[in-house]
Order: sequence, then structure tokens, then C-alpha cells
Amino acid sequence: MGKTNTARLVWKGENLHFRGQLGSGYEFDVSGQSGPETGGSAMEFLLAGVAGCTAMDVVHVLRKKRENISGVEIEISGLRADEIPAVYTDVDILYIVRGHNVSASAVEQAIELSQTKYCSASIMFKQAGVDVRTNYRIEEETA
Amino acid sequence: MGKTNTARLVWKGENLHFRGQLGSGYEFDVSGQSGPETGGSAMEFLLAGVAGCTAMDVVHVLRKKRENISGVEIEISGLRADEIPAVYTDVDILYIVRGHNVSASAVEQAIELSQTKYCSASIMFKQAGVDVRTNYRIEEETA
Repeated sequence: MGKTNTARLVWKGENLHFRGQLGSGYEFDVSGQSGPETGGSAMEFLLAGVAGCTAMDVVHVLRKKRENISGVEIEISGLRADEIPAVYTDVDILYIVRGHNVSASAVEQAIELSQTKYCSASIMFKQAGVDVRTNYRIEEETA
Repeated sequence: MGKTNTARLVWKGENLHFRGQLGSGYEFDVSGQSGPETGGSAMEFLLAGVAGCTAMDVVHVLRKKRENISGVEIEISGLRADEIPAVYTDVDILYIVRGHNVSASAVEQAIELSQTKYCSASIMFKQAGVDVRTNYRIEEETA
């Protein structure tokens, strides 16, 4: 049997604001009027899941390959259908890798491994028919 | 054209810990060693998206139907494949609705509308082949 993940949400009253707790114990806010104080939107958290999943894979693989990385950032954007249900149709992920003499082919392999093999969230998006595109940029950084 | 959502993650160093910011401005933590302090796991945030999406729909529909609701909680659990990629295969969502004389058929209709028409996250999960099951419980609460 595979692993089970859980989450729980409690409605906090009028403005479609919910307080959430993930099974791991981490707490967060989700809101119909998303913002820095009120909470993220539900569909934003879906993107966060995809970004988090592939971000970890890429860091993990690059460290295994002993690449000298000092920073990784992920920017993700998702275009949604203009009809209801407003599912994601297109997702773009930009990987920004900072470090010293980082190999472009190592970064490409890490992204490829994540997108085709390890990143369950991204693979689920593809199974749902989303066109997931990736791009990367390497920034030289001397310590 | 539909709406675009965005998110951004920045690696915080050794332990696969990333600080995230959603396009709406809300900040969060995602971590390979998930916990109350370190952050949620990426796959937990995917469940949070589904839960948040359907939670808002159900509150919205029940208020439109002028049901006298005082509390709503959502419990979601997702079983993952035991091979890589460990995608979700089965998701169970329990809706707990508190209030006075809340109509069971109104709750059923709200869940049905969300699951088949409005909740993009849940519909994407179904498109990805996930078996999404729902259940509900109404708890009488006198103000």
C-alpha cells in the first residue's frame, strides 16, 4: 500500500476564509479573497504543490551529481480555462539555478528526471491534460 | 483568455526547505522534511488545493440556498501509488456541516455541484484518473 496524505480545513466565518492544517502539522490559510493576510487561493496551492515537488527533485538530483549549487528558485505560472470549471490548461515552470560552473546538461537531466519520473504532482497535471512546459536559467555565482 | 495564477519558491539551503510566495502575496513553507515548523510537503499542498476549492463551493452554495450554517469542516485524505511516481490514486473528502435544521439534500446538491461543475482542482484530479469519493455529516447546532 502507498502512503496516505491528509489535510483538514475549518471555515472561519463570513468571507470564505478557511484555516488549514496538513497531516504533517503545518498550518496555512486558504481564502476566496486571497491575499498576503487572508490566505492563498485553492488553485494557487495546487501550483505550489507542483512547484514544491519539482523544486525538491531538482535540488536533490543536482546535489547527487555534486554540482556546486548555491541557490535555486522556481517560478511557476498556470493559465486556466476561461469557462467553468476553470482547470489549468498550460503551466510554465522556470528553474533558476545559481552556483559555480553548474553544468547545463546536469540541470536539463534533473528537470527531465523530475518531470517524467519523480514529480507526482507534475505527472498528475499531465495526466489531467495540462501542457506543462519547463525552462531554466543558470546564474554564475562565486562564493 | 482565462486567468493566470502564479507561485514562486526559493530554496533555503540544506534540508530541502523552500519558502514560497503565491501570486496573491500569501507566503508559505514547503519542505522535504514536512512538519509544523518546517513546512508542508508538496503533495499535501495538492490536497489542500482540492479541499480549499470544494470547501468554498459548498459554503457558497449552502449560503445561497439560505441554509442556516454555523460551521463547515473538510477532512481530505489521499492514497498514493506505492511505486514512483507516487501519484494520488484515491481521495476521500468528508464534509462536516454544522447548523440549525440544515437540509441533507441541500448539502448533497452543494457537494454534487462542486464535484461535477465548479471545483477545478477536484475535476483535474478526476481527469488524472483519481477516484474522488465524498461523504458528509450534518451536526445540529443551536446558536
